[in-house]
Amino acid sequence: MKALGRQILVEYYDCDVNAINDVDFVERVLLDGTKNAKATVISHNFHKFSPHGVSGTVVIAESHVAIHTWPEYGYAAVDIFTCGETIDPWVIQEYLKENFKSSNVSSMELKRGLFKVGPGEELLFKPKENAELSFYK
Amino acid sequence: MKALGRQILVEYYDCDVNAINDVDFVERVLLDGTKNAKATVISHNFHKFSPHGVSGTVVIAESHVAIHTWPEYGYAAVDIFTCGETIDPWVIQEYLKENFKSSNVSSMELKRGLFKVGPGEELLFKPKENAELSFYK
Repeated sequence: MKALGRQILVEYYDCDVNAINDVDFVERVLLDGTKNAKATVISHNFHKFSPHGVSGTVVIAESHVAIHTWPEYGYAAVDIFTCGETIDPWVIQEYLKENFKSSNVSSMELKRGLFKVGPGEELLFKPKENAELSFYK
Repeated sequence: MKALGRQILVEYYDCDVNAINDVDFVERVLLDGTKNAKATVISHNFHKFSPHGVSGTVVIAESHVAIHTWPEYGYAAVDIFTCGETIDPWVIQEYLKENFKSSNVSSMELKRGLFKVGPGEELLFKPKENAELSFYK
């Protein structure tokens, strides 16, 4: 079995409350973190909630990063979903940890999209440029 | 221990290839699915890849739904992250299954943001309107 992608679910506890309540800061950290990991950013959307809390997503060519923060609990929930061999999701995880000053991190890595592949066969997370969909059916 | 949120990771295998390659259809299904579950949509972003494949996120007041599709493998990876008692993420999961005509679904539910709470204490996923952040520190 081979997997199309990897996903890290991260619980950042005991964060810097002001850092994870600052929507501009959170957005910059996620964008810089994904760029550091050589991901290609496609779009990003961040929101500040009233009276506090931030939610945001960064769609990357290699999948996505999503965050929800609860400053009142010093906590941020983050998902880092990546495909391909060029990106290491743990680089993003570490960058966020440093910037949110989380002193208590719990992470879990899962494989997404499991397929049986025969000997010598490839599981391409990105189709070849001229690939026709009917070819696969 | 109580949790701030629930997350369902869904692997939709053996989907209708044309359905999961149609960015407008995928977007409508995710929006309708979240609305059916009484979620409050805050923003949504969907992208079509060349030569095929769709990625998208729906940020809801209660967290998010994200999708990545690989029509060439008949596969869609979906995350459904919800908070609060009013939304059932499985309603969304079921709606997507029907619309993508997936005949092989694998799902896993996880709890996000675990905290110890004392007797009679509440874990509020949404802060009270006038709550001051300094109150929590």
